[in-house]
Amino acid sequence: MERKELLFGTAYYPEYMPWDRIDEDFDMMEKAGMNVVRIAESTWSTLEKEDGVFDFSYIDKVLKKAEETGMKVIIGTPTYAVPSWLVKKDPDIMVTTKEGKAAYGHRQIFDILNPTYLHYGERVIRRLLEHTAFHPSVIGFQIDNETKHYGNDGEEMQRLFREHLQEKYKDTDTFNRTFYLSYWSNSIHSWDDLPDMRGCVNGGLVGEYEAFKRTVAARFLAWQADLVREYKREDQFITHNLDFEWKKFGADIAQDGYSYGVQPDLNHQEASRCLDIAGTDIYHPTQDDLTGAEIAFGGDSIRSLQDKNYLVLECQAQAFKYWTPYPGQLRLHAYSHLASGAAGEMYWNWHSIHNGYETYWRGLLSHDLQSNPTYREACVIGREWKEHAEELAGFTKKNRIALLVDNRSLTALKWFPIDRDLSYNDVVRWMYDSLYEMNLECDVVDVHALKEDRYDMIVTPALYCAGEDLIRRLDAFVKRGGVLVSSFRSFVSDEQASVYPDAQPHGLTDCFGMTYNQFTEPGRAMIKGEKIQYFMELMKPESAGREAGYEHPYWGEYAGITRNAYGNGAAWYVGCFTEKELLKEVYQKAAKDAKIPLPAYTWPVTIRSGRTKEGADLHYVLHYSQEERDITCPWDLAEDVLTGKSYRRDDRIHLKDWDVLILREK
Amino acid sequence: MERKELLFGTAYYPEYMPWDRIDEDFDMMEKAGMNVVRIAESTWSTLEKEDGVFDFSYIDKVLKKAEETGMKVIIGTPTYAVPSWLVKKDPDIMVTTKEGKAAYGHRQIFDILNPTYLHYGERVIRRLLEHTAFHPSVIGFQIDNETKHYGNDGEEMQRLFREHLQEKYKDTDTFNRTFYLSYWSNSIHSWDDLPDMRGCVNGGLVGEYEAFKRTVAARFLAWQADLVREYKREDQFITHNLDFEWKKFGADIAQDGYSYGVQPDLNHQEASRCLDIAGTDIYHPTQDDLTGAEIAFGGDSIRSLQDKNYLVLECQAQAFKYWTPYPGQLRLHAYSHLASGAAGEMYWNWHSIHNGYETYWRGLLSHDLQSNPTYREACVIGREWKEHAEELAGFTKKNRIALLVDNRSLTALKWFPIDRDLSYNDVVRWMYDSLYEMNLECDVVDVHALKEDRYDMIVTPALYCAGEDLIRRLDAFVKRGGVLVSSFRSFVSDEQASVYPDAQPHGLTDCFGMTYNQFTEPGRAMIKGEKIQYFMELMKPESAGREAGYEHPYWGEYAGITRNAYGNGAAWYVGCFTEKELLKEVYQKAAKDAKIPLPAYTWPVTIRSGRTKEGADLHYVLHYSQEERDITCPWDLAEDVLTGKSYRRDDRIHLKDWDVLILREK
Amino acid sequence: MERKELLFGTAYYPEYMPWDRIDEDFDMMEKAGMNVVRIAESTWSTLEKEDGVFDFSYIDKVLKKAEETGMKVIIGTPTYAVPSWLVKKDPDIMVTTKEGKAAYGHRQIFDILNPTYLHYGERVIRRLLEHTAFHPSVIGFQIDNETKHYGNDGEEMQRLFREHLQEKYKDTDTFNRTFYLSYWSNSIHSWDDLPDMRGCVNGGLVGEYEAFKRTVAARFLAWQADLVREYKREDQFITHNLDFEWKKFGADIAQDGYSYGVQPDLNHQEASRCLDIAGTDIYHPTQDDLTGAEIAFGGDSIRSLQDKNYLVLECQAQAFKYWTPYPGQLRLHAYSHLASGAAGEMYWNWHSIHNGYETYWRGLLSHDLQSNPTYREACVIGREWKEHAEELAGFTKKNRIALLVDNRSLTALKWFPIDRDLSYNDVVRWMYDSLYEMNLECDVVDVHALKEDRYDMIVTPALYCAGEDLIRRLDAFVKRGGVLVSSFRSFVSDEQASVYPDAQPHGLTDCFGMTYNQFTEPGRAMIKGEKIQYFMELMKPESAGREAGYEHPYWGEYAGITRNAYGNGAAWYVGCFTEKELLKEVYQKAAKDAKIPLPAYTWPVTIRSGRTKEGADLHYVLHYSQEERDITCPWDLAEDVLTGKSYRRDDRIHLKDWDVLILREK
Repeated sequence: MERKELLFGTAYYPEYMPWDRIDEDFDMMEKAGMNVVRIAESTWSTLEKEDGVFDFSYIDKVLKKAEETGMKVIIGTPTYAVPSWLVKKDPDIMVTTKEGKAAYGHRQIFDILNPTYLHYGERVIRRLLEHTAFHPSVIGFQIDNETKHYGNDGEEMQRLFREHLQEKYKDTDTFNRTFYLSYWSNSIHSWDDLPDMRGCVNGGLVGEYEAFKRTVAARFLAWQADLVREYKREDQFITHNLDFEWKKFGADIAQDGYSYGVQPDLNHQEASRCLDIAGTDIYHPTQDDLTGAEIAFGGDSIRSLQDKNYLVLECQAQAFKYWTPYPGQLRLHAYSHLASGAAGEMYWNWHSIHNGYETYWRGLLSHDLQSNPTYREACVIGREWKEHAEELAGFTKKNRIALLVDNRSLTALKWFPIDRDLSYNDVVRWMYDSLYEMNLECDVVDVHALKEDRYDMIVTPALYCAGEDLIRRLDAFVKRGGVLVSSFRSFVSDEQASVYPDAQPHGLTDCFGMTYNQFTEPGRAMIKGEKIQYFMELMKPESAGREAGYEHPYWGEYAGITRNAYGNGAAWYVGCFTEKELLKEVYQKAAKDAKIPLPAYTWPVTIRSGRTKEGADLHYVLHYSQEERDITCPWDLAEDVLTGKSYRRDDRIHLKDWDVLILREK
Repeated sequence: MERKELLFGTAYYPEYMPWDRIDEDFDMMEKAGMNVVRIAESTWSTLEKEDGVFDFSYIDKVLKKAEETGMKVIIGTPTYAVPSWLVKKDPDIMVTTKEGKAAYGHRQIFDILNPTYLHYGERVIRRLLEHTAFHPSVIGFQIDNETKHYGNDGEEMQRLFREHLQEKYKDTDTFNRTFYLSYWSNSIHSWDDLPDMRGCVNGGLVGEYEAFKRTVAARFLAWQADLVREYKREDQFITHNLDFEWKKFGADIAQDGYSYGVQPDLNHQEASRCLDIAGTDIYHPTQDDLTGAEIAFGGDSIRSLQDKNYLVLECQAQAFKYWTPYPGQLRLHAYSHLASGAAGEMYWNWHSIHNGYETYWRGLLSHDLQSNPTYREACVIGREWKEHAEELAGFTKKNRIALLVDNRSLTALKWFPIDRDLSYNDVVRWMYDSLYEMNLECDVVDVHALKEDRYDMIVTPALYCAGEDLIRRLDAFVKRGGVLVSSFRSFVSDEQASVYPDAQPHGLTDCFGMTYNQFTEPGRAMIKGEKIQYFMELMKPESAGREAGYEHPYWGEYAGITRNAYGNGAAWYVGCFTEKELLKEVYQKAAKDAKIPLPAYTWPVTIRSGRTKEGADLHYVLHYSQEERDITCPWDLAEDVLTGKSYRRDDRIHLKDWDVLILREK
Repeated sequence: MERKELLFGTAYYPEYMPWDRIDEDFDMMEKAGMNVVRIAESTWSTLEKEDGVFDFSYIDKVLKKAEETGMKVIIGTPTYAVPSWLVKKDPDIMVTTKEGKAAYGHRQIFDILNPTYLHYGERVIRRLLEHTAFHPSVIGFQIDNETKHYGNDGEEMQRLFREHLQEKYKDTDTFNRTFYLSYWSNSIHSWDDLPDMRGCVNGGLVGEYEAFKRTVAARFLAWQADLVREYKREDQFITHNLDFEWKKFGADIAQDGYSYGVQPDLNHQEASRCLDIAGTDIYHPTQDDLTGAEIAFGGDSIRSLQDKNYLVLECQAQAFKYWTPYPGQLRLHAYSHLASGAAGEMYWNWHSIHNGYETYWRGLLSHDLQSNPTYREACVIGREWKEHAEELAGFTKKNRIALLVDNRSLTALKWFPIDRDLSYNDVVRWMYDSLYEMNLECDVVDVHALKEDRYDMIVTPALYCAGEDLIRRLDAFVKRGGVLVSSFRSFVSDEQASVYPDAQPHGLTDCFGMTYNQFTEPGRAMIKGEKIQYFMELMKPESAGREAGYEHPYWGEYAGITRNAYGNGAAWYVGCFTEKELLKEVYQKAAKDAKIPLPAYTWPVTIRSGRTKEGADLHYVLHYSQEERDITCPWDLAEDVLTGKSYRRDDRIHLKDWDVLILREK
């Protein structure tokens, strides 16, 4: 990718079209200012109609047209949906989960360890690469699609897991002790006695198993990346569309859910190692529910994997009926992605499909394949991006706050829930969104990739599983002057989800200056006059200050929020789930501790800042509201990249509904 | 059936009785004025205790008694519940569904394609017919019971479906194109590669499969009818109790649900071809929730199949605890059936069963088998029907409005839902019930049996799947002067549920004088000051008038209801789910367009009209309310058939709670 | 057990500890005044690490320590959780239920009829007994753990059930008639044709099957008891922890539910025959929801099995987050158990487990294994119990009221529900709790163990299945002067759930002086101005007085509550589900009929009375409230056992929040 342009495009499926209309499509794309299409993923049955009989004509047609029109192309490997002939050949290709063998029909339900699947997958990838890698329009490759382990509990998965356990724990005694398996007679004394994991009810061991399955999925991606690397040119990249835990909101079949939090079935950090550039798929509520939080969370997560620009390989155009964008919103989405550090965005997808599972996951074009208001707004984006690519491409960020996320804690809190209605990702989003709404920008960092020296403040939402090493480093971080803000259920167990058998928060009682050994459902308890929900730890401050106490006839003696000056730094602990406003008060003081200035505005006026590749300070001002409003310019002198209009400090800046300004400081 | 009497009777199961009390039962039936019993269905294990050993004694006893007392008998074939010895002989008889092989115990869970089942079924039917067909008391036969395909996904079903596809689509390319199967690599290039339909996620192909399964069920009925026809006399009829989609209301096990809408698992039109007289089972809420809508909808549906009188083979006596009838309600039910064109009604069932699945689906007699208030009300009905049979039998209707229903649209909208909480049948009932409450009577017509020339107004609720031919005919219907009233989600796709890739509503943009290519969840949107629910299409009127527009900050430019004068007729389109009152305003104007006069009263004063066999205009006045009220006579001179009382125009007519009058115009 | 002390202790799992801390644990137990631990159950995989290789070291260590410190030990047999090597050896050990073969991992999912399981179970029990029975510290044995049939639908279970049916009903005709199996062709004419019970939908036959499965579970316990009896000393007892239907309250995974009502999967009466002393596990809401009702219901049930003191083998310490006890509550729990006749109580468990399914079923110690407020409150209990054991041990009760419970009615009302939201146990608890709140103490008696001569008043909640013999005895009981209080849905069917085909309530229409043959959902109906819920029978009083009638436009002629003077006694019938206050009015009058005096106070001031082993009247005053209050002494002279303080009649007694007094009358 050249850093002097922004990628703007779409997933394109000419093979799903009712007739050949490639010329018309490319004309319309050109009018929309698009410069890239992603093709070929999910079309194995078109590519290889019969065992060994390949048909590249539908790909060739796009490549030819692309070359003629200067369109860039990303080629997707087609392995996430297999042709039925392959399953007829070897039904074992289908994944075996707790529910048994999957039935053919859906995508992403294969056993990614199955040799037949891997054999045929390798062949089709090699043939596709041979056929396309040389092509000048092809700028990169997406390997597979939103890859996960698909709940794989097959024999091979379990065999490999047993090997993994043997290698890691050596003897069964250590293994039993690590997971406390004598409970309910689950201890084993020969590795052969390891039972089928499908019946396992030891949350810690299931957590280990889930972590292993994530590793298997990451290895599968690495295997594909290695294959592609044999063929690709130096100037071509390998990417993958990492996605997020999908939150259902109770709608229908395929038309339900959005990108919510940490992905349970793939570790992004692990998976991204084989990628040249991280990619992502981000879907989110819109209309009255558009907040920008999902775009920001997803972007902060994916950018932090490699600390550089990333690709939004899929984002919504019209999608579900709930998300038909209001005028201005499609443009606001687009700039929100850039504001998080995206190198561009591609719609899923170009056209609305006329039959099949995702008929109402609507594309930029409606089923009539003609222009429509959403398409016309895309044309505005395309025009602006073309005009301002030079200034906007290569935007970089350097955040002073890290929010730590951890797949193992996510799994652990499924087995040891805080509350039925409060998942790990709910806590993550509670802590992330509160920062986001204050315009306190952060990196979202995998707990195993933390470089704590880069940050002034570290936030840990429900970091249940925390290894001794991490705990030591966090303690040292605060001592050296860092600010730590932790929520309830942090530092409870080791990485195997075995609760530390000593004072909580384990290893950090000095750092936090408090401890607790009881907790409770809040019931009637309040804090600072506000209802507490889901959980509260009964904290006894020692050196810490009691920032807020519980209001309750019996729990009044305990603290709910504490702050401890420790070494050169400060450690905050929020022992209960509060209204966001209370958490923001904590952040406000913690930011002061960390000497991080508070931005002038708060959501719905969102400010996302960074630096242009020329080194100028650039501020995206994103207005997530239907209500027009005026703000005053908080910078000495800043020019709106889009309009060229300049503002001096305290000048009135008018924000229309769903407005975007990009202010470059002078 | 002789057209000079009304059938009044009950399903009768002497074999379920704790002791032989046939004399007492027939005495009580006679006191209730009953003239027909339905027997023998569901008693295969009594009829054929062991393979080939038949026992007709329990049937003989009823026939003998019937002959003595002049009771008519309908014989049911017993195939919907098989004896366990047959399943021991061949366990494959049980149906295979998505959930696997069914377990013996319940009824209606057999593989209606299984050769063993068909072999033994044929034998028992032949033996039963040989034994009963000659009997003078036997007036007809009910084949099987509420027959459906029972979710059959067995091998034979799938093999036949593949044959059906091959025959219909010839080559796999056409097949792939028709259903857009290249999506997610589902295209096939050899018929052998057609995967097990149980995993299929292509809504269109599943729709085709469901349609095929409905055909298999209809063929099964035709097979039984052919068998019966070999034995029956000229004067005996073949019928079947067609039932409706069952709507659960969240109660318990067997005591939950009522007849709601179009049957998903059998096409009534297709099934009724083999019947001499259509029959039906109708169950409905009562007590405070008695509206008459289900009786009317069911009756209008079944009557329209053959455009003649039909049999209510099952209707409720006491049934669930929710439905213990208030005084007067059982009688109101009975006349409501007649008012729709029923030739009579039979209770399910005579007595409350003392153990088994339907112990609390109570009959006319409670478990004590003695008289009770509900039984005593049946005696009133019987007396009246005997007295007035001559005038009431042979009642015919000629409605000017047709409401079109379609099984394929029903299936399609399961896969491509309008909303989680709005099913196809919800839209059907919204449009039907609004007509019903205005006393605008209609035929409920299968979309494939429409004879449009018979009607002045056609209503299409969510007619998602509409073939080109139908669309052309509806266009011509309006041009010629007809009035079309269509809801949102009509004319979206072809019969394979593939969305038409051009302007919506497909083929009818001229007729409706508008088009749309976007739609949305309504959110805050209102129409005429009322909240919109579930769905709204963003309509751009061209020649059409904007009858109502959306009230919303961003969707205000779009129309919500349009009317287009087209040729000699008019086409109305309701683009969103509104309160019923708004829909009724549309009907009011559309009826005026169609020159259909509006009845003088609206629900809860229901008027259902037709003609006696002597040609007099007859009006059932059915009062669905606890509140007494007066109305004025809207006819010049009319006499109440039941009381002989005459009313002149504008005379006060007093309606008691749950009252019935039958006014014959003079 | 010596009757001069109270057992106070805990389940103890040193093998679940992160390190060997037996010395520290025993020190802490001693400080808490504990005198008993229960060990070894659930640790088969620790005891027998490989087939035939036994390791008693972890048991020996406890026994040695116990001997040194004077701690008593109860040994649990380990059969409720098997080692994985045993399942590898014979996978058939896992139970087969409707859902198929269970997967290894969880506890209590074995086929208790499987010969391999029984063979290895016998061996490990024998070896454990050989090794421990002689030990002086061992006072008794708990066989297995919360034993049930585990939904066993395996082949052997079904084979035995068929034998049971053959033996009980002799010929298939009787069998068919008993259960009305001709319905839906379910009758059989050869025992070989009895189908797999997993598909059975005859509620009566399923009820028979469930009863049989409960018998199988009871036989399993008897088998274990016989084994233990071969080894145990005269002075050692056999017990078992009987538990109750578990009511989920919608929380998380393992942290959800409490002891609610009659156990569906084991008949306590049948099971307790093999026990020297009945034991039980009781868990209940606490904090603001602590009422004492579950402790009282559970205690009244278990005490009534053998009419003597019983062991609380498990009760909660901290348990779920919802139950972290307020100060004073743990002590109130403890005395509440004694007040029901418990011989002592043992916490589940000593420490909170660090990994596994029940990590957050917290013990007395939190995960830090140090002192905490709950532990410190246990120390208070231990101190008081030691001090007052002599006076409190051997407390006996003689109640004049019996509340009848019946497993068969429970099953029947699952198949023939009163209402989706009103289970059999809901009715039981409605009737029990109303008595409890009035301080009218009762025995909770299995319907098959009733000795009616012991009581003055008998209460039957929804006693749906009632045999002719019971009905005759109840009739005679009233005639002789007893008072019967029955709810709706009593005396409806025989024990096979076949509804009696004559006037309801069967056989007791004279006794109750009324009958009914219709019932209904209440809808708008009220009684004494209060809403009726779920169900109402339309009662026609004959000799009975109409204590309350329905308020409803159509049901007003029927009675809702009746009282009939009959012989020397009185029979009350409550025909609908009322607010508890109305039921209490009935009890008040019925108690007067039975000449049972009404206690001076009502809940939250709970008074539970009985006699000390010296014959003094002892009254536990248990204050289930956060609000302090004063009551006046209702006895002439009484001394508080705990404080020594004396009160004369009408003296003011001050009750602190969650307070306990034990007043011995002088």
